[in-house]
Parts: sequence; structure tokens; C-alpha cells
Amino acid sequence: MSNPRGLYATNGHGGGQGNFGVDYAICYKVPPEGAFSLESQSGRSRAHRPPERAEAEAGFVQLVEALTHVGLATEVRNGQETSLLVFVRVASRDLLAQQVYRARLQDWLHGVRTSEPGADISRSLEDEPVTEAERLRLVYQMIARPENEGGAGITETGPRWKYVDGVFPVHDQAFNKAWIQKWSKKYLLDQADIDEIRNKFGENVAFYFAFLRSYFLFLVFPSVFGFVAWFLMGQFSYLYALGCGLWSVVFLEYWKQKEVDLGVRWGVRGVSSIQYPRSEFRWECETEDPVTGEPKRVYPQIKRIQTQLLQMPFAFACVVVLGGLVVICNSLEIFINEVYDGPFKQYLAFLPTVLMAVFTPTFSTVLMSAANALTERENYETMDSYHAALVQKQFVLNFMTSYMALLFTAFVYIPFGNVLVPMLDFWRTAAQTVTLSEKPLPTQIFHINPQRISSQMFYFTVTAQIVNLATEVVVPYVMHEASAKAKEFQGKGTAQSQDRAEEAEFLKRVRDECQLEVYDVTGDYREMVMQYGYLLLFSVAWPLAACCFLVNNWVELRSDALKIAISCRRPIPWRSDSIGPWLTAIGFLSWLGSITSAAIVYLCSGTRTSPLTAWGGLLGVLLAEHFYLLVQLAVRHVMSRFESPGLQQERKERYLMKRRLLQENLGQDVSGKASAPGVAATEKILRETLQEEARGASIRGQGPQEERFWQRQLGMEGTILAGRRLIEQGAAEGKKTRTGAAPGPKA
Amino acid sequence: MSNPRGLYATNGHGGGQGNFGVDYAICYKVPPEGAFSLESQSGRSRAHRPPERAEAEAGFVQLVEALTHVGLATEVRNGQETSLLVFVRVASRDLLAQQVYRARLQDWLHGVRTSEPGADISRSLEDEPVTEAERLRLVYQMIARPENEGGAGITETGPRWKYVDGVFPVHDQAFNKAWIQKWSKKYLLDQADIDEIRNKFGENVAFYFAFLRSYFLFLVFPSVFGFVAWFLMGQFSYLYALGCGLWSVVFLEYWKQKEVDLGVRWGVRGVSSIQYPRSEFRWECETEDPVTGEPKRVYPQIKRIQTQLLQMPFAFACVVVLGGLVVICNSLEIFINEVYDGPFKQYLAFLPTVLMAVFTPTFSTVLMSAANALTERENYETMDSYHAALVQKQFVLNFMTSYMALLFTAFVYIPFGNVLVPMLDFWRTAAQTVTLSEKPLPTQIFHINPQRISSQMFYFTVTAQIVNLATEVVVPYVMHEASAKAKEFQGKGTAQSQDRAEEAEFLKRVRDECQLEVYDVTGDYREMVMQYGYLLLFSVAWPLAACCFLVNNWVELRSDALKIAISCRRPIPWRSDSIGPWLTAIGFLSWLGSITSAAIVYLCSGTRTSPLTAWGGLLGVLLAEHFYLLVQLAVRHVMSRFESPGLQQERKERYLMKRRLLQENLGQDVSGKASAPGVAATEKILRETLQEEARGASIRGQGPQEERFWQRQLGMEGTILAGRRLIEQGAAEGKKTRTGAAPGPKA
Repeated sequence: MSNPRGLYATNGHGGGQGNFGVDYAICYKVPPEGAFSLESQSGRSRAHRPPERAEAEAGFVQLVEALTHVGLATEVRNGQETSLLVFVRVASRDLLAQQVYRARLQDWLHGVRTSEPGADISRSLEDEPVTEAERLRLVYQMIARPENEGGAGITETGPRWKYVDGVFPVHDQAFNKAWIQKWSKKYLLDQADIDEIRNKFGENVAFYFAFLRSYFLFLVFPSVFGFVAWFLMGQFSYLYALGCGLWSVVFLEYWKQKEVDLGVRWGVRGVSSIQYPRSEFRWECETEDPVTGEPKRVYPQIKRIQTQLLQMPFAFACVVVLGGLVVICNSLEIFINEVYDGPFKQYLAFLPTVLMAVFTPTFSTVLMSAANALTERENYETMDSYHAALVQKQFVLNFMTSYMALLFTAFVYIPFGNVLVPMLDFWRTAAQTVTLSEKPLPTQIFHINPQRISSQMFYFTVTAQIVNLATEVVVPYVMHEASAKAKEFQGKGTAQSQDRAEEAEFLKRVRDECQLEVYDVTGDYREMVMQYGYLLLFSVAWPLAACCFLVNNWVELRSDALKIAISCRRPIPWRSDSIGPWLTAIGFLSWLGSITSAAIVYLCSGTRTSPLTAWGGLLGVLLAEHFYLLVQLAVRHVMSRFESPGLQQERKERYLMKRRLLQENLGQDVSGKASAPGVAATEKILRETLQEEARGASIRGQGPQEERFWQRQLGMEGTILAGRRLIEQGAAEGKKTRTGAAPGPKA
Repeated sequence: MSNPRGLYATNGHGGGQGNFGVDYAICYKVPPEGAFSLESQSGRSRAHRPPERAEAEAGFVQLVEALTHVGLATEVRNGQETSLLVFVRVASRDLLAQQVYRARLQDWLHGVRTSEPGADISRSLEDEPVTEAERLRLVYQMIARPENEGGAGITETGPRWKYVDGVFPVHDQAFNKAWIQKWSKKYLLDQADIDEIRNKFGENVAFYFAFLRSYFLFLVFPSVFGFVAWFLMGQFSYLYALGCGLWSVVFLEYWKQKEVDLGVRWGVRGVSSIQYPRSEFRWECETEDPVTGEPKRVYPQIKRIQTQLLQMPFAFACVVVLGGLVVICNSLEIFINEVYDGPFKQYLAFLPTVLMAVFTPTFSTVLMSAANALTERENYETMDSYHAALVQKQFVLNFMTSYMALLFTAFVYIPFGNVLVPMLDFWRTAAQTVTLSEKPLPTQIFHINPQRISSQMFYFTVTAQIVNLATEVVVPYVMHEASAKAKEFQGKGTAQSQDRAEEAEFLKRVRDECQLEVYDVTGDYREMVMQYGYLLLFSVAWPLAACCFLVNNWVELRSDALKIAISCRRPIPWRSDSIGPWLTAIGFLSWLGSITSAAIVYLCSGTRTSPLTAWGGLLGVLLAEHFYLLVQLAVRHVMSRFESPGLQQERKERYLMKRRLLQENLGQDVSGKASAPGVAATEKILRETLQEEARGASIRGQGPQEERFWQRQLGMEGTILAGRRLIEQGAAEGKKTRTGAAPGPKA
């Protein structure tokens, strides 16, 4: 095996220069002497070393041994405070090349790759260079894979490595700087920008950016249309609702195709079928897999389905708790703003907002932990199914917190405001009781304010998005910088003073990265999907929403990049071939949007002449929903007719593989052009067969009848002669019959 | 290559004994001398042979040459009247074995087979014997494939072989007899019976029988439930509608899984992705395929979609013509039966039925030919897409003819009978005009008869099915027998007298088969799908329907077998991996059933206390439809959790293939247990790498920094020692800081 150069320097940046070729840093916490010794001073103090520290030290030795065992080189340095930093890279390029080959072969067997990787490893690596993301993924798998599967088995979770505080790739500072600079100067991102992310951070992160980019570009249509609709038709226009629904169908189908294209482009199509087992999975019994004969850990499906039924009370609890909160706060707000006219009105107006701001996160946190516990109890076998189940519950929760207030306004307050009167009376009584005043509170008469939905939409589309941006990027960055400064001030000199001059900058950077949060792409997806929901569910009430989202998403694309680059640890470059469970969520929101838009238009447009009727609303909803479903069918049908670039490329790869295999096996061309043996050869074959049959007939005991049947007209010439004779005869017979019988028309 | 025995005798019957080993018979028409000579007597008569006969004779020679060229042996005999019978088989077993190998290799490349067929042909044929259906399919492909693809290019359609009247495999009389006898004695069919059909007639036919069998077994539930519902709750029960809807969801999902299972069992899963080009396809230009570089015939998609838009006026025409007919005949019938009370009432009652019986087939034929023409104009490239498009139009047509009358009764007559009064008045006036009588016709007062729907359902489920059975099996059989007798009487002795004694019986049989119709499985599917529609759309009005269908389908299974065995040519054993477009039709009917059932229950149940309201009906429909969709989701979810036998088998095959390949490539076990290099090996590798890097550093000009970084702690021991020292230091530092600063709790 030759030494494949360039494994570590595939695309310019190299990723090794500023980082000394380090692939991963492992942060190893050592319990501080002080904390323990203070305690142990009151208890017995054993020998020189306290047992916890000894345990940590033994663990460290095991860690280094395990890493070395699987072929990784290690270096250790001082970390923040008493922790250690273990740096890891693959011991040699050959070893890495082997890993790459093995992984690609596995991919091929799983059907992710069309063609088998060439047996000559170094050449196949030259043909298809290893990206940084691929290398880092493979190295991480060497570190994290269980020991019985050839890895070191080192993970952050679980009791085995309790002092391991983080395993993460080191940021490529040069790339990050160039990346942020480039994006901040560009108006529109192109596919190459996304490809770059894929090469650095893996397909999982790249899919998010690709989705955001497509969504951003698609938003141009509803922005323009919404802008025009706002000026020409105002709120609640049927036409806008229709346009929005159509747009959502097209976008959804486009994205599905785009996913396939990207999957092919990045060579990850079908990757989701490779499932990673969850280490937390608890099994009830071990049986032998009926197929592979391997021991298989079984958790009865029926039990899981029973646990899954608990999702219903969970969803119910979400609706009651968060819905109740929304109803209470909204009615209070309506009371204060539109009925109450007493003292402190300007201050009291903030009360509902404060209540919402305090209780929504509280309840959400409680419910979220319930969702986590429930998903844990559902006990999934694979990471993907666990993740999908969790996302599903998160979606229910977020759905409630995001849309409940608007649903309340659109479907209760505006059309049926009068049903709120008893509730408002309740608040009046409550206020009277609180203020203990005998004389009635000064109040106004309750009027429904139809602009309430627009101001709410404005809040959700503008205010909330800006607040969100701040909490997402600015706050963590400031917090981190502040705490880093504080720590630096506190622990100054202890660790850093030992650093060699050339390593100092690098080590300081890695120590900083240790303190950062792990990047979770789920949160970013959630934000975008919720935004998509606002657009489809409610933008008919405020068609300018899309314009705001367009602006927001331009910033979002860059701020998310910034977030990864400066306020998160570099993510482990996992692969994926889609945006996963979020696709279902988007589909659901699109469908629901067709219903709510129609209902909002029917219920809220105040210019109606006829009174509201139940059947009118139901008919509207029914028609809108079926229109949506029909359009979806039509768009799918039309789009399936055109071959997308990704599918075309895949077909090409398959074609080339087929041609190669067929040529190897049959020496024939691909289109199945089997060369016919030709007349002479067939004649010869036939004669031989008949002779053999004649010989074999007596042995096999098969009737000589069959043999005789096929020997009557030996060969082609015989058949042709016999046929000609029969045609002649037929003609003669025909004449005879005709002369004998009366001539008549006989077809 | 050894001579693989048993290719022609794989499963007992052998298929060759009574048939002299004949695979295919080709019926070659020769224009009768008489018919021509009568005409030519008035014209010029050229030499001895008329030109048409000469052309036929030349064609015959070409036919035999073409067959021989591709490796087929031929024999010719006299056919009915002046036609010839050309018998075909493969010239030798080796040739057939090659064809089998080639076809299986192609299957593997198309992803239909999991594993590559072994390079040792004769052994792989022993491992996986060739069924009669496979052999006949391959022989047919040798006959029919275009010449540039290595076939003889002989088809019944097209001008090239205009005298070829039929290419069909010869019935296996012994098998057919045993088959019919066996089935007529069995109460329930099992999987083995279906497998037998598959081995004889191919997967395409077998899928129909498998579907019918599953449907028959599933019908037991609605039969029992319907029977109970009929007695306990009568017509129009919500509960029955609900049960029926649930049943349809379960059946649909079960069948989808069953299709996969059968596909795997028969080794045809994914066969539908192999598309056969349509010879009638007209292209506008030839371009090069961007993928394969082969010349590609292109018909612009946009043109096809434009043509497809014509489907809308077509569907509209169906609705207007057939719907109008139904409305006219039904209102006339209502007038005669329930209003008219004059003379000849008992005779006039037949008038609407006669009108329907006369005009429905007439209009259907016209519309069907329009559908054919339209599909032809849509100009599909492949057989499957053409077939699917045709089936779709047939379905629309059949939907109208089958369900329009019931839809009229359920949604117009029973709930809103009064809207018919003007129509009845029209008939009264018309009748008055026709009879020319001055005095008013004797009439009754119009009463809505709620039992009308039951009697109609009775007609469609009992009478029509019996009539259908008769026209499908009995009539063609009698007709054929009669015409055969007539022909025998007429042409006695001309052809038969020359037959050799041992061949006489066989040749007579084949001559008979020549006269039979081609078996078309589409018609049988259509019948069953329409029946399924009656059950789901209307059986809530007459819950006994399922019982009748159960009985009918018991007979149907056997009568369809009988039809294939005695009144049709043996079908060419095509493959398929599903019931094709009918699955969509069934899904559509299930969905529609959830709507119509709810609507019928709401509209027609006479026991309601509250009056009919539009919103009640709409709400009922909305709830029923969404209940259906929700249940469908749930059932799919639950069913996807359990691995069906077919999928399990496929996984097993894939696993075995994977294991073999991995062992061949890496010598490692399947689960990806890459053997780690171990500590010693890694140390050695590392040292070598570092040495090499040290040598290479100056040449490559890469910074010595990286090299030095990794050389600080040479090997595992170095890292461990360094780490220990750092831990010690950290402890010392900790103590120092603690003694220096005020001791405080510091985690």
C-alpha cells in the first residue's frame, strides 16, 4: 500500500496548519485537589492521593491506552483549571486510508454508493479525495465506536468515561474567518458556499443551510405577492390565501426533489438507512436474529406502542396547560387594554406580557422534561428513531407556544368576541376584589378590535425574531467572553504559563472552545419550521409577514454561520440525507395552513354581507383542503415527469456500473444486445441436440414421440419446404372445395 | 458448460409430454386462394401465384429464418383452414441456460435480485430451477424482442408481420385438468395454489389470483359484521359505516405488505422498474441521452401534458353522457313505477331497463374508443405508462356506469325526492303527448320509496354478478364450441386428414386454441375493483352486500381459473410486482367510501329527529374523511413496526450477500468489526510516520511545528507520563492557590 498523500490537505485550507494537525481534542476533567481535600480533611485522608483523583488518573491512562489501541496518536496538554486536554490524530496516513476504504465499502454494501471502491486504495483515494468532514467523521467513529466494533468506545455520556467532558474537532480558525467574511459580503449564497460547509462541517449541518437557502429564495414569491396583496386587497384576501397554499405545495415538492439532488451530489443518498444503535437502549431479552443469526436485543414492540399511547395525554397536557395560559393572559390583556379604564392602566398593560414571559418558559421546561422522559421510556433502539420521536414532541410543544395566541385571536376573539364577555366580567370582579374598592371600576364598553391579529403577527414576525436573534447569537457570545475573561483573571498563569510559545495561541483557543456549547442543529430547524408555520397558518391576516421573514432569514443565514464559527464547539460532521422529521412537520403545517387560511378568511373578513353560517365555514374549509390535496397530487405528477439533476447523475452512475459489470460478465453491451447465435450455429446446435436426444431417449425413458415430432422437418430448410408445400396444398384444397361447394364469400 | 438437465421438466408436469415439447405456437394466416382468385378473376391474374399469397409465403420464409437465427427450432403443420401452425422451441438446453443466465444477470443489475447469479451456469440453474413461466417468458422474449436487441422481432401488431395471427404458449392440458379438478374440490385456496399458478402462468396472472384470494378471505369480516348489522341495526347504521371504513384501511395496508411479500417470494420485487418500450411510440426528434450517450427518442413532455389535459373534457363527457342517461332512465323508471298508474304499467316497467341495457353499452363503447384514441395520442414511451393511463380512463368510465345510478338514488332521490317532481311532470306531459289522449293519465301521488336503494343494491350485487358470470364464462365457451363444431363440419377432412395419428389430438387442440381469445387480466381486475367500490361506497345502504360478494368471489376464483383453462389462449407469462394501477383505484375508492358512507348515513337514515342541515352533513363528511385519514396513518405506523416475512427474507438475502462480499474484500466479519491494530502496532506505525515526516518535512516545506508538536510525547507511554505529571502539578497548583487565597467552596 503506497502512502496516500493529500489525505490531510485536500482543499486548500488543510485544516492542519494552525492546529498542528490535531483532529480531535478531548477535554478530560480532573477533580480539583482543593475541593476534595477540604472535605477529606474532616474525614480520613488516605496516603498522598485522594481516591477520586486516583480514579481520574487511572481513567486517563485507560483513555490514552484505548486511543492508542485503535491506532490514534495522542498528545496531552494542560487545560482550563485542573483539566487536561488530550489531542488526537490518526497515527498514520495508511491507517486513515484503510478506514476510508472500509467505510466506503460499507457504504457501497448499504447501497449508499453506486459503485464499489476500487481495490487499489491509494488510487481510489486520489479519484475521490477525502474531505475534512469525512476524515473527522471517521476519526470520531474510531474514538466513539464500541470496543467490540473496533473503536475505542469513548463517549461523553455514560458512566464508563465520567471524566471525559467533551470530544470535539478543533475549529479551523482560518477557514472560519474567511467564511464569515465572505458571507457577510455576499448578497446571495450559491451552491458552492453550501458545498464548502458540507466539506467542513458535514452533511447534517450543510442540509440545514441548504434548506434555509432554498427557503430564503422561495420566500421572494410570497414577499412580493404579499406586498401587492396588502396594498390592493388588504387583509383576509381569498386570493392571497390561495397563492400562499399553491406556493407551499410547490416549495414542499421542490425541496423533496432538492433533497434527493443534494443527497446524490454529496454521495449520501440512502445514508439514513444506516442506523446507529442507541447506547441507552434497554432490552428485555436477547434472542437470535432470525435472519443473521446474531444475538439481537429485543424490546417488545407492543410495550413501546403502549408507552407511545402516553403521547396522547402529553399532547392533551400541552393543550390544556399552554392553551389555558394563553387564554388567561389574552383575556386579561383584552380586559386591561380594551375594557379597563382605571388607574395604572399604562403599567398594568405590561402585566399579561410579563405573565406570559414568566410562565411560558416555565411550563415549557416542565413539559419538555416530560417529553424527554417519555421519549426515554419509549426506549428506542436507534438514534434516528429516538431523535424523530423527540422532535415530534418538541414540535407539539412549540406548536402550542407559538401559535396558540394567534389561534385564539383568529378563531375566538375576532369572530366570536362576545363569548369572552363572561371572562372579562370575571376579571372585572377579580380586579374589584383585589383593589378592595366598593365603587365599580372605571371601564369602557368592550369592542372587538380587528387589528389585534395584525399587531400580534407584527410581534411574532418582527419583535420576536429580533429578540430571538439576540438571545441566539449575541447573548451567548457576550456571556462566553465575560466568563472567559473572569476565568482568565482568576486562573491566570496556572496553566498558560507552562505553554510553549508556539503552542500558546492554539492552546488558549482550544481551552476556550472547551467552554463553548455543543452546536445543535435541531434548534435552528425548529426556528425556521415555526416561522414557516406563521407564514402558512396566519399570514393571510397580515400578508407583509413574508417580507419580514425574507429580511430575517437573510440575517439568519449569516448569524447561524457566525454562531457555529464563534459561539459553539465545532460540530461533529455527521451525515444525513434529508432534513429528517422536519419534513413531516413542514408537510403538516402546509396542510393545516390550507385549512386555517380558509377559516380565517371566512371568519375574520369583516366586509361580509351575509351573516356567518356554520355550513359556509365548513364548506370553505372542505374546499380549501381538497384544493390543496388536489394541487399537491397535480404538482407531484408533473414534477415526477422531469428528471432532476441528482436522479440523472445517479442513473448515470448506475449505467456506468452496469456497463462495466456486464462487460466483465458477458462481454456484451449494456442494452442487453445479446448476440443471436445465427442460423448456421442454431442448425448445428439443433442437430447435436437431436442426436443427443436420440441417444438419451432410451436411457431417460422419455417418449420417442417428442423426438420424432421435432425430427420431421430437420432444420430451417426442412421447415420452409414443408411450409411451402402446405401453402400450395391449401391453395389446391381451396380450389377443390370451391369448385365442389357453391362459391360464396368466405373471409 | 455442462448440459443442464431438467430445464424442461422442473415440476412434475413437465409441460412437454402431451405437447411434444412445444413452447410456442405461431398461427400464420395465409390468404385463402379462393377469396382472392374470385376477385382476381375479374382483374389481371399474374402467373400461377397471386401476389398476396406470394407475399405471405415470403413472409413465412422470413419468419422461419428469423426464428432459426435467434436459436429457436421450428416445425410447421397445417392450421385451421388455410393457415399454418409454426411450432417453436429453443434449439438446445445450453442455449436456454444461457438465456436464463443472461436474464438473471440483468435482473441483478436492475436490483430485482439481491445476489449475482453464480458464474457456473449449470450449478446456478440447479440451485434455482427454471419454472415453466420463466422459460416461456424468455422464449417469448427471444421471439418478440426487436432484432437490434437480439430477438427475432416477431409480434402480432405492426405491419411487419401482418400474417402472424397469434403467438401463444400451448396449454398444458394435463395441468389444466388437474388444476380445475383440484380447485373445484377445495373450499379454501392456499398459498401453494397461487404459487402453482405463478409457475405456470407467470406473476402477472398470479398476482390477480393472490389479490382475489386475499380479498375473498378479508371479505369474511364485513360479511359477518354486515349480517349482524343488518339484523340489529338495519340500514344506514353509523357503526357499520365505521367498521367498513376501518376494514378497508386494514385491508389496503395488508395488501400493500402482501404485495411486497409476494414480490420477494417470487423474486420479482422491483420488476416494475424494468420498462418495456412501446413499439407504437412516435418520437419528434432523436437526441443523445445525457447519461448513457445512447440515441434517445424524445417526445416533449409539455406536449404530452397538454394532451393529458384533454382527460378533463373526457371525464366531463363521461359524466354528462352516462350521468344524463342514468338520470333520464331513473326518473322515467320512478315515474312509471311510482306515479304512473295507467294501462300497460307492467310492460312499461321494463322500458327504462331496456333503455339502460341498450344505451349504456353503446355509449360506453363510444367513450371507450375515445379513451383509447386519447391514450394513443398521449403517446407513452413504455408499456406500463400506457397501460396505467388506459386503466385510469377505463376506471372513470366504469365508475360512471357502475355507481351513477346508486349515487343518484342515494344523494338525490331519497333525501331530496321532491326536486324530481318537475322531472316527473315532464314525463307525465310527454306520456300524455305520446298517447294523444285528452283526459289526464291515471297517476298516483309521488311517494319516496326508501327501499329503492336496497333493491338497486340487490340488483348490482346479485343479479348483475350472476349475469356477469354467465357472460364471462358460459357464453364464450358455448360460442366457441358452437363455432368450432360449425367449422369442423364445414372444413372437415381438409387439414385434419393429413395429421399423423400420434399428433392428431395435439394439433386439433392447438387449432382450437388459435380461435380462442387472448386472456386479459385487466377485465378481471376491473370487475373486482368495481365490486370493492360497491361494498365501500354503498353497502351501508344494504349491509348484506358483503355476504353476496363472498359467495360470488368463491365462484369467481374458480370461474376465472376455468376461463383461463378452457376459454382463453394460454397467457404469456409476464412478470409484475404489484396489481399496478388498480392499487390506486382501490385506495381512491376506500377514501371516497369514507365520504359517501357518512353522507348516505346522514342523508338517508329516516329515523332522524332533527331536520337535515347542510352543516350537519358537511361536518359528518369532514369528520368521517379525517377519521379515515387518521386511521390510515395509525395503521401504517403500526404495520411498519413489524417486519413482514417478505422483507425479512430480503434482509436475509442482503445480509448473506454482504457477508460474502465483506469476507471477500476485507476478510472481516459483517458487523463492521474492524480489528484495531493494537497498541504495539500503533506505536510502531507512529514511530515510522514521525520518522518519515521528519525526513519529508524539509522536502515538502511543511512547517516543522506540526512535527514537533506530535513528537513532544513520543508514544503512549510518553503521553501517560506527561499527563500524570500535569495532574500532579495541577494538584500542587490547587493547593498553592488555596493556601494563597482564602479557601472557599469551588467546584
